[in-house]
Amino acid sequence: MKRISFLLVGVVGVAGAFAFRAPASGPADQASVPVFVTQIPPGYRNWRLISVAHEEGNLHSFAAVLGNDVAIQAYREGTLPFPDGTFIASLHYQHVPSAENNTVFGRDQSFVPGSPTNIQFMVKDSTKYAATGGWGFGFFIDGKPVDEAKMTSCYPCHAQEKTRDLVFTRYAP
Amino acid sequence: MKRISFLLVGVVGVAGAFAFRAPASGPADQASVPVFVTQIPPGYRNWRLISVAHEEGNLHSFAAVLGNDVAIQAYREGTLPFPDGTFIASLHYQHVPSAENNTVFGRDQSFVPGSPTNIQFMVKDSTKYAATGGWGFGFFIDGKPVDEAKMTSCYPCHAQEKTRDLVFTRYAP
Repeated sequence: MKRISFLLVGVVGVAGAFAFRAPASGPADQASVPVFVTQIPPGYRNWRLISVAHEEGNLHSFAAVLGNDVAIQAYREGTLPFPDGTFIASLHYQHVPSAENNTVFGRDQSFVPGSPTNIQFMVKDSTKYAATGGWGFGFFIDGKPVDEAKMTSCYPCHAQEKTRDLVFTRYAP
Repeated sequence: MKRISFLLVGVVGVAGAFAFRAPASGPADQASVPVFVTQIPPGYRNWRLISVAHEEGNLHSFAAVLGNDVAIQAYREGTLPFPDGTFIASLHYQHVPSAENNTVFGRDQSFVPGSPTNIQFMVKDSTKYAATGGWGFGFFIDGKPVDEAKMTSCYPCHAQEKTRDLVFTRYAP
């Protein structure tokens, strides 16, 4: 079983290091099985602003990143790692020009959110999500969770942000 | 005095039309004198998200637009005009590339908020701000209100958005 665990570590990046930091309550092997966030946390649209983001390339995506009270307090106090109970939501929209605003400005300069594209969540529970650095990742399109293959892609990317507990977004004052 | 009033209307656009919609409690002439928001409303950073925006041209600006409870309720229920007590904040930042994120993505695509540049407010009080469509406009740099000439520029621009009570930003779901 040890060999299989090592293979999993290879697949998901540095899962082992985070699993050790936040041990699961179950047997050690359970800690290496990723668990995803498959229910949209209620009330997320009322959470407060962490920051905004814009991805170009082939994404043309706007993000509004919101956090629940635990998240906002941790951000403002600089608490790392984020405590259990932290919820972070990243609401994505198409990044589209605003013809209406451009008319007022008298030139093409204004971009606004178009249709919503997806919502992503990070939920901190160092026991439940021990296999993925204490974070549960969720990815929803049209209110429905994406398939497991796509969910699995979240963690290896976030695992590269080791110095800030796997969270890319910084707090905008 | 009538002539002076007309001149003011000329300067600030269609102030007259809005002043008539929401008459001031004082003498008629008072309604044509713009009053600005010169104190930052407390607690604005805890307001909820209305939407995000991005201005290019020579601005390279990110905006996070937040609203108090009255604003959020009005947006969600589609209430127009916005009721007295509506507060809307537009937090502006430089729109800058994120070298850190681009390293993870493996290409240049990611933009995040840089330094804060200014914060703008719209406050609905149809009596106090009768001269400017019932909205008080505020514009702050480094926590300080800008000079009156700059404050004066807010209203004529917003006055062009007649169909949505002078508010450009739409609610992002």
